[in-house]
Amino acid sequence: MPFIHVRLFEGRTQEQKRAFVEAVTRETARTLNCPAEAVDIVFDDVKKSDWAHAGKLASDAGK
Amino acid sequence: MPFIHVRLFEGRTQEQKRAFVEAVTRETARTLNCPAEAVDIVFDDVKKSDWAHAGKLASDAGK
Amino acid sequence: MPFIHVRLFEGRTQEQKRAFVEAVTRETARTLNCPAEAVDIVFDDVKKSDWAHAGKLASDAGK
Amino acid sequence: MPFIHVRLFEGRTQEQKRAFVEAVTRETARTLNCPAEAVDIVFDDVKKSDWAHAGKLASDAGK
Amino acid sequence: MPFIHVRLFEGRTQEQKRAFVEAVTRETARTLNCPAEAVDIVFDDVKKSDWAHAGKLASDAGK
Amino acid sequence: MPFIHVRLFEGRTQEQKRAFVEAVTRETARTLNCPAEAVDIVFDDVKKSDWAHAGKLASDAGK
Repeated sequence: MPFIHVRLFEGRTQEQKRAFVEAVTRETARTLNCPAEAVDIVFDDVKKSDWAHAGKLASDAGK
Repeated sequence: MPFIHVRLFEGRTQEQKRAFVEAVTRETARTLNCPAEAVDIVFDDVKKSDWAHAGKLASDAGK
Repeated sequence: MPFIHVRLFEGRTQEQKRAFVEAVTRETARTLNCPAEAVDIVFDDVKKSDWAHAGKLASDAGK
Repeated sequence: MPFIHVRLFEGRTQEQKRAFVEAVTRETARTLNCPAEAVDIVFDDVKKSDWAHAGKLASDAGK
Repeated sequence: MPFIHVRLFEGRTQEQKRAFVEAVTRETARTLNCPAEAVDIVFDDVKKSDWAHAGKLASDAGK
Repeated sequence: MPFIHVRLFEGRTQEQKRAFVEAVTRETARTLNCPAEAVDIVFDDVKKSDWAHAGKLASDAGK
């Protein structure tokens, strides 16, 4: 606790995810006043063909 | 906002998902009285071997 | 299955939610080709003070 | 209802998942006093490179 | 890890939830071959007016 | 997108949540290389009586 779940478009590199979890864990501990050891983060990569905004799949945007 | 998350068995086509997001975004805007631009929908395909009902995996049903 | 989870700002009436589940269940069955009996929908009301966009809580927007 | 969602590291076998859903459905029905037919369980396999604890991806642990 | 999220109708007692987490943690450890210390369970109570099946809110069922 | 969902024990102040969304949105934009306008964060406060670790509800810990 806290448990942080992140939905994002697929395609980010491991280096980006590594930087994200380092920074977000640090800021979570600082702002919510909890130990870093209490923070879990899970990524959920989503394909553009599985995310729609305003009734249009992201994979169709711009078409 | 609203953010709509849909878990469903894998196997639906892009055409089916496209029809779903068009219809559900329209009905969300109409019934909840919000702009279509506020609606996000994310699909989460689930394998039959990862969904259980009544203690039995869907992939085992009928066996 | 499908299982549909809807996060939305609190404040919608029961009548609005009732209209939503009727319309979205019907459109789900039609577009995904499944029986209405297979569709579950769960609402998750979120306070404006618990939703942030672009780094700002919705309860602070406009301030 | 109840709807049980399980995030776990990938790598468990179908036999393990089958044993899990049998046992957890039985215990859910017993402790929450509901029919087994009301219990749905969905697995969500997570790669070690998508789960971070204490600011470190599980795939980096031990390095 | 595993992280188990349980959506259920509101109204279960603390004693029922306590019995559930004891039994489900034990069965998770046994069937997935992990330490009990690795298991987190979170309950999410849902009002009958926020859960719909087959296009009908549970609070309207039987009407 | 990204959509970030945070489960945490209830009791944090609005000021803490405000500081969290400012910092986490900034770090998300920086590490994942996306505009801050693309970031949504939702908090889900959980009662100690609804979170169990190692088979024990947090509200029972220390008893």
